[in-house]
Amino acid sequence: MATDVRLKEELPAITDQLVETYTECSRLNHLAHEPLPNRDAVAGIVTDLFEVLYPGYGKRQNLHIGNIGYYVGSLIDALHDKLTTQIARALRHELCHERDSATESWENANDDKPHVDCEKIAQPKAVELLRRLADVRKTLELDVEAAFRGDPAARSHHEIIFCYPGLEAITVYRVAHELHGLGIPFIPRMMTELAHAKTGIDIHPGATIGPGFFIDHGTGVVIGETCHIGRGVKLYQGVTLGALSFTKDDDGALLHGNYKRHPTLEDGVIVYANATILGGQTVVGTRAVVGSNVWLTESVPPDTTVVLEKPKLRLKGAKPVNEPLTYEI
Amino acid sequence: MATDVRLKEELPAITDQLVETYTECSRLNHLAHEPLPNRDAVAGIVTDLFEVLYPGYGKRQNLHIGNIGYYVGSLIDALHDKLTTQIARALRHELCHERDSATESWENANDDKPHVDCEKIAQPKAVELLRRLADVRKTLELDVEAAFRGDPAARSHHEIIFCYPGLEAITVYRVAHELHGLGIPFIPRMMTELAHAKTGIDIHPGATIGPGFFIDHGTGVVIGETCHIGRGVKLYQGVTLGALSFTKDDDGALLHGNYKRHPTLEDGVIVYANATILGGQTVVGTRAVVGSNVWLTESVPPDTTVVLEKPKLRLKGAKPVNEPLTYEI
Amino acid sequence: MATDVRLKEELPAITDQLVETYTECSRLNHLAHEPLPNRDAVAGIVTDLFEVLYPGYGKRQNLHIGNIGYYVGSLIDALHDKLTTQIARALRHELCHERDSATESWENANDDKPHVDCEKIAQPKAVELLRRLADVRKTLELDVEAAFRGDPAARSHHEIIFCYPGLEAITVYRVAHELHGLGIPFIPRMMTELAHAKTGIDIHPGATIGPGFFIDHGTGVVIGETCHIGRGVKLYQGVTLGALSFTKDDDGALLHGNYKRHPTLEDGVIVYANATILGGQTVVGTRAVVGSNVWLTESVPPDTTVVLEKPKLRLKGAKPVNEPLTYEI
Amino acid sequence: MATDVRLKEELPAITDQLVETYTECSRLNHLAHEPLPNRDAVAGIVTDLFEVLYPGYGKRQNLHIGNIGYYVGSLIDALHDKLTTQIARALRHELCHERDSATESWENANDDKPHVDCEKIAQPKAVELLRRLADVRKTLELDVEAAFRGDPAARSHHEIIFCYPGLEAITVYRVAHELHGLGIPFIPRMMTELAHAKTGIDIHPGATIGPGFFIDHGTGVVIGETCHIGRGVKLYQGVTLGALSFTKDDDGALLHGNYKRHPTLEDGVIVYANATILGGQTVVGTRAVVGSNVWLTESVPPDTTVVLEKPKLRLKGAKPVNEPLTYEI
Amino acid sequence: MATDVRLKEELPAITDQLVETYTECSRLNHLAHEPLPNRDAVAGIVTDLFEVLYPGYGKRQNLHIGNIGYYVGSLIDALHDKLTTQIARALRHELCHERDSATESWENANDDKPHVDCEKIAQPKAVELLRRLADVRKTLELDVEAAFRGDPAARSHHEIIFCYPGLEAITVYRVAHELHGLGIPFIPRMMTELAHAKTGIDIHPGATIGPGFFIDHGTGVVIGETCHIGRGVKLYQGVTLGALSFTKDDDGALLHGNYKRHPTLEDGVIVYANATILGGQTVVGTRAVVGSNVWLTESVPPDTTVVLEKPKLRLKGAKPVNEPLTYEI
Amino acid sequence: MATDVRLKEELPAITDQLVETYTECSRLNHLAHEPLPNRDAVAGIVTDLFEVLYPGYGKRQNLHIGNIGYYVGSLIDALHDKLTTQIARALRHELCHERDSATESWENANDDKPHVDCEKIAQPKAVELLRRLADVRKTLELDVEAAFRGDPAARSHHEIIFCYPGLEAITVYRVAHELHGLGIPFIPRMMTELAHAKTGIDIHPGATIGPGFFIDHGTGVVIGETCHIGRGVKLYQGVTLGALSFTKDDDGALLHGNYKRHPTLEDGVIVYANATILGGQTVVGTRAVVGSNVWLTESVPPDTTVVLEKPKLRLKGAKPVNEPLTYEI
Repeated sequence: MATDVRLKEELPAITDQLVETYTECSRLNHLAHEPLPNRDAVAGIVTDLFEVLYPGYGKRQNLHIGNIGYYVGSLIDALHDKLTTQIARALRHELCHERDSATESWENANDDKPHVDCEKIAQPKAVELLRRLADVRKTLELDVEAAFRGDPAARSHHEIIFCYPGLEAITVYRVAHELHGLGIPFIPRMMTELAHAKTGIDIHPGATIGPGFFIDHGTGVVIGETCHIGRGVKLYQGVTLGALSFTKDDDGALLHGNYKRHPTLEDGVIVYANATILGGQTVVGTRAVVGSNVWLTESVPPDTTVVLEKPKLRLKGAKPVNEPLTYEI
Repeated sequence: MATDVRLKEELPAITDQLVETYTECSRLNHLAHEPLPNRDAVAGIVTDLFEVLYPGYGKRQNLHIGNIGYYVGSLIDALHDKLTTQIARALRHELCHERDSATESWENANDDKPHVDCEKIAQPKAVELLRRLADVRKTLELDVEAAFRGDPAARSHHEIIFCYPGLEAITVYRVAHELHGLGIPFIPRMMTELAHAKTGIDIHPGATIGPGFFIDHGTGVVIGETCHIGRGVKLYQGVTLGALSFTKDDDGALLHGNYKRHPTLEDGVIVYANATILGGQTVVGTRAVVGSNVWLTESVPPDTTVVLEKPKLRLKGAKPVNEPLTYEI
Repeated sequence: MATDVRLKEELPAITDQLVETYTECSRLNHLAHEPLPNRDAVAGIVTDLFEVLYPGYGKRQNLHIGNIGYYVGSLIDALHDKLTTQIARALRHELCHERDSATESWENANDDKPHVDCEKIAQPKAVELLRRLADVRKTLELDVEAAFRGDPAARSHHEIIFCYPGLEAITVYRVAHELHGLGIPFIPRMMTELAHAKTGIDIHPGATIGPGFFIDHGTGVVIGETCHIGRGVKLYQGVTLGALSFTKDDDGALLHGNYKRHPTLEDGVIVYANATILGGQTVVGTRAVVGSNVWLTESVPPDTTVVLEKPKLRLKGAKPVNEPLTYEI
Repeated sequence: MATDVRLKEELPAITDQLVETYTECSRLNHLAHEPLPNRDAVAGIVTDLFEVLYPGYGKRQNLHIGNIGYYVGSLIDALHDKLTTQIARALRHELCHERDSATESWENANDDKPHVDCEKIAQPKAVELLRRLADVRKTLELDVEAAFRGDPAARSHHEIIFCYPGLEAITVYRVAHELHGLGIPFIPRMMTELAHAKTGIDIHPGATIGPGFFIDHGTGVVIGETCHIGRGVKLYQGVTLGALSFTKDDDGALLHGNYKRHPTLEDGVIVYANATILGGQTVVGTRAVVGSNVWLTESVPPDTTVVLEKPKLRLKGAKPVNEPLTYEI
Repeated sequence: MATDVRLKEELPAITDQLVETYTECSRLNHLAHEPLPNRDAVAGIVTDLFEVLYPGYGKRQNLHIGNIGYYVGSLIDALHDKLTTQIARALRHELCHERDSATESWENANDDKPHVDCEKIAQPKAVELLRRLADVRKTLELDVEAAFRGDPAARSHHEIIFCYPGLEAITVYRVAHELHGLGIPFIPRMMTELAHAKTGIDIHPGATIGPGFFIDHGTGVVIGETCHIGRGVKLYQGVTLGALSFTKDDDGALLHGNYKRHPTLEDGVIVYANATILGGQTVVGTRAVVGSNVWLTESVPPDTTVVLEKPKLRLKGAKPVNEPLTYEI
Repeated sequence: MATDVRLKEELPAITDQLVETYTECSRLNHLAHEPLPNRDAVAGIVTDLFEVLYPGYGKRQNLHIGNIGYYVGSLIDALHDKLTTQIARALRHELCHERDSATESWENANDDKPHVDCEKIAQPKAVELLRRLADVRKTLELDVEAAFRGDPAARSHHEIIFCYPGLEAITVYRVAHELHGLGIPFIPRMMTELAHAKTGIDIHPGATIGPGFFIDHGTGVVIGETCHIGRGVKLYQGVTLGALSFTKDDDGALLHGNYKRHPTLEDGVIVYANATILGGQTVVGTRAVVGSNVWLTESVPPDTTVVLEKPKLRLKGAKPVNEPLTYEI
């Protein structure tokens, strides 16, 4: 390689310049002795959880009733340790962050911080999550059943567990929601974002969603933090359950927090592709159906179907001769 | 780590509780001596197929006319084995599943099952897929050509193969469609879902799609199982080609199967971003153009352009003074 | 495995058939002694850049002010080499491609090609990118700040860096845009497509985007090559900033190039979910707000809010008795 | 790279030439549809066995009495499958080999071979090995105890398990010996050669060795196939327990088989570094001690010490002045 | 696979049986909440140390004077953390072990153990090792120089660093010896055993060895714990520097500890292949030469050469006609 | 972790100190823009060569006559590139080294160095090695045959290829010897040292060894650079074929170079365990046999057997009562 050595000699200066920005723009870095939760570790936890929730479909093959107890017991034990470590990191980080924003005084008095044993707080939360997994499985079975009933293209339950991104996103949500309920910061959102990246389905871990939930195709679905979704609800791709506008404080700054900003969907509601339902006061009643592309900011009574007024389409005649097709064979 | 040992002692009980759900909610697990197709193995097959279909763009570099034969021959040989194994697993699983749902009697008489040598059925299907790859390449060349003609931002054919998610999704679809045509369960859908996860484009392997097909950007595109798409068709992101409603049986349950539920797009059709076309009887005629955001449930004659009636927009004046911009510099 | 040996004996013929297509459909392969840029290598570069831009959030933990200089210096040095190699490959490929399309004569006269030392051209471009990273960080800090102000669900800056796909896509865009500005082919687009695959957000590296840019949720967002986006702009999921129609040459072929085809969004504009804004002459004025689902092809004055005319929804009464819910508990 | 393309064009001819030798010198290749045992798989089995035999010292950490059952159960299950597969391969290969050498007639009548289900034979052997592991552990505890008593440098039992190559070689031998006793070809030797490569200690799996065996340092130790070693024996590095001469058949060819060719060491024998003991009739009696460098081809009575007659050393005076030291500081 | 399910059903019983031996033969397992030092982690530390001691020869290439500081700084920082963790584990383990063997009382009173913060003790030891590395390098340069002067086959210093197992073993010894001097248990021996496994050279970390030390070929060399080796010493393969006999206590048990059991070699001594020198009182004087195969248990004055009395060889005549060569061409 | 931050703050000073030694003790580092041959790359080449020389025994399974051509062709092509790169690096390094030692003047005139295209020299050497592999295989078949005839414990040719370290060392030697003959520095020795590390057998690539060579067990064997070994020779473990004394120049420094320093073994010679044969003038005649432990510095006529004069052993009577056995059961 015809490397110009003089150009390479600039690299130390470039490094120095960058390192300076770690003081200037310090919000973009985490330079401290307490590590943050680790993305790869959280991803590993999610993989382990899938092994426990859907044994036989994932990494380990040849599972049968004679060895499943060993395999799951081994995973539960490993999950205990991994979850405790990551939860403790998340708690510790939040704690430091709170202090930092609360008072300036601790900044310069690092050693005076009252020591909190975050792992001691983390462990019972980790165990509690594991304790709840049996119930999560019961709910997921209803979700799988709903997918099978709701999609004529589904050939078997196995195909749904193997191939349906909707179920993958819901599974991660159900676990993340439990962690969210246990007051654990960061990690629930990291988990749902892992699912978002893979499936294009963005469910906030704070949302409340009943059993028998089915999302078909799913790309582009957004379910906001304060949604309430009943039992047996079905969504298609591109559905947004969002906020209508944000409450601001006296200075016009957005109010951070979880006041109800997103809609409620009661039991048995169906929302077709690319519909948008907004607002914390918007309630879609039991068994109501919202048609494709509908944009809805008001409540809908039960057993009602809402579709777009047949849109007026403008049909232009045969395209002019001088506009050839983009593609011809 | 300040582990509380008593908490850890709960883990065996938690494991037992979970293992119980493997009997209760048995649909979520696959505990049997015959392994399912393996997701990582299927992903490996797709990677190998890309190496064969687009040599020089993927993992192996320094390919040239003198060594390409060795490399491809080696891959074809490996693909033969990998495909045979995975197809045999899929066939065996379907077979077991059919029996299970057909009659209860086999359940308790495991040893009496008439033995079917699934690998014997799988191998000729694997070979047939490999045999068809040369033709698949010829079709893909028309797809690449269509992408180049259809996107003014494209600088070269190489850029399309390298960077266009649309082509990636179409490539996987074209292979999966062949497998689907050979009557192989699970694996075609596993393949298209791998592509869906990466590209946000969800093409059912059962759809029929002519050559010269181009999808631009692509996130959110959904193409249903019974679509017919002609030659030289072009879609943009967010386009849904879906079902209007589902046929139900006398008990109100969805009819599973592949009766025509999704639309037909004839040769040369263009569909712009986020348009929705629904229904098995809906035919978009040759060279017709469907505008962005259009919601269409009826047929359109050839050489016609359908756009939204210029929507009435409501313009509200300058925002009130007390609502500052979210962002100011 | 009950392999049928006679079937396996067909594999060499299948290989030969495929190898023939490498001459016939030569556009799908790259068989030459000069390697193309490598996707995995480019992905590795992006990972390294995130380590430099957001130290402490990524792979390497336990970074602190005492060791960060070493770590970053080491990365910058490695990035210099990796970038130089990949940029040189991209330049060389473009060069060959240009010649190939320009004249047929060079084809047969391989040895006569005037030799260009692509690495000599590549190295200063690599160094220039590294030089600009400090400024990129300053811009990114404004982006993070905008996200925090713009999303009430955000609990801290750390959560945004950790979990927000919008920031991930913007970060990759900002680096790719610099490479694009340095005239480097392929690699900028490979980078943004990596981000597109992960986030569902498709930003062309050629677009111009001011600081304080925030994309919430993001799946399905498309930002075209010639967009101009001002300071403090905020987009939601599914927003398309696209082209209205394409200029064609006298033969009706699309004009490739980067004339202005996509809209301009001035400072402080907000565009809500699934809105579509098209056309190179369309200007959305300062602080204007475009509502959810709006389809816009004309300019909007500053400080204006554009929403859909309250759409007429058709409400159908209680569903008939013979149509049971898809799901019941 | 300044690759000379014409040189590269020779590679196919080189390949053809090599492929020809696969017919000519066919003993160096295994080209057949039945795979051989796999070295990496056998190495994986050995690793798993160490995890089971010495839990807590190897890969998996944080093992305790509450989770060890899960971990070991999981390993035993995996070992069952891995052992069955590899043993079946070894048996099948031996079977084919026997036939090949026995009669020429089967060579050309591949399909007429009476089919033997090797996995059916392999599985009970695999299970039998697992069944014996508990006893192997009891013997190994005596080996560890002997090492601790026999080496003044040993600080604790833990150090011996962690750091003593002698124990590693003995452990592998003890397992391989069981497999050898079960009539399994190839695999026992593959295992002991793995240990030989790591420790320099070469114990033939056919040797018989009592409990409480200790090898110190160990590099260069060779223990032949038909050795009998009693209880509580101790060897140092470089000790050979070998054959004196080989029995030949009437044609002067070596007799293959396992007639007693190597010595017997009775209980409590100690053999110091680099001693050589040869011959199937040579018996070193109970508690006898063989000194360093001794070369022994005859029996030694019990409770006897055999050392080299004090060797006559020739001492040459001060080296001449003109021969400087190799090294000076 | 023709798995016999009834055989598999034995596996849980086999597991239980093994788990029982974890209580019976508890010396072979480490089942506790405090992890032991980890072999792979220690191997990683050794790899990092080679990168620091011989930069440019190992994993990282393209090192030059402009980036070496970053690379080494980054490694030193990582080594600090890795060493601290592993040293702390080793110390903690030794502590527990001491207590266990000292008194029974602590066994049942786990929570009453006076807590010792082993990481607090470990960190300064880790830093001290790093501090000494510069001096270790200076000694190693003399070792390389000695190898170059001592082996006529050596072509350059680079070849020695690249290819000489002797240097590899000495390098590991020099680092392990420093750790041993700092009172760290387990880890020094784990390190030298890693080198022993690779090189066949077994140097106890407790031995004292002067600079300019050269071992040629090296397989089978053993250097005991209490050896003293001067400056500029040279050994060949198979040399043992061992103990003559062991001191025993009143009960006849070996005395564990490090009283002088192994010989002293003064400056400039050369010992040829397979010589054996034994005994704590044996002193080989300055510049003495010990010939190949010599067995030495007494001291040798300076500037003396000791060789075997020309051994009487028995020559037997031409082999009988009926004993053909083993091999003929 | 209770990290003491002040201790960590010492690390930059420690780094600086180490970096200083890179100038002081510059022989231990390679800090330059031209990379050295890479150990892992050379190991990869050796692995590939085993795949080509013994197909079916190594990594790739399911090789048969129908696909072996593809696999080998692919490997040969890859080997061409890998060998060319590594050989070029070795040549370039030697070139620089020669200059450095020859004249000081080039040191400061880096840019004036006459440029040598080392890859241009390397490529034909790489191709020549590949060309010779077919012949190497023919020789290796004779080696395998010799092992089978020479070891009564060998059950089949397959076992020898699979399990015999002697064959592994000889195979690597045969390839390395070809490279050595082509004048390639470093790499041949790197290869034989890889084999030395695994097998304990140290064969210098410069030695000349006829076909039908067999080494049994092998640990500790050393074969010097200028040995001549005839056809059908057999060695046992611990055999040294070494130099008697080194020629020194007028200053007493060792003469580097390859004048004959090591013995000659004529056809059919057998050397038993731990024998030592020294000296460039020492010739062991055809079919001679050298017994175990013999120390030989003079020539032996053909068809002669040389054994140790029956050594006088000193037998000491029953050990005193107060010396209990080290081990009792």
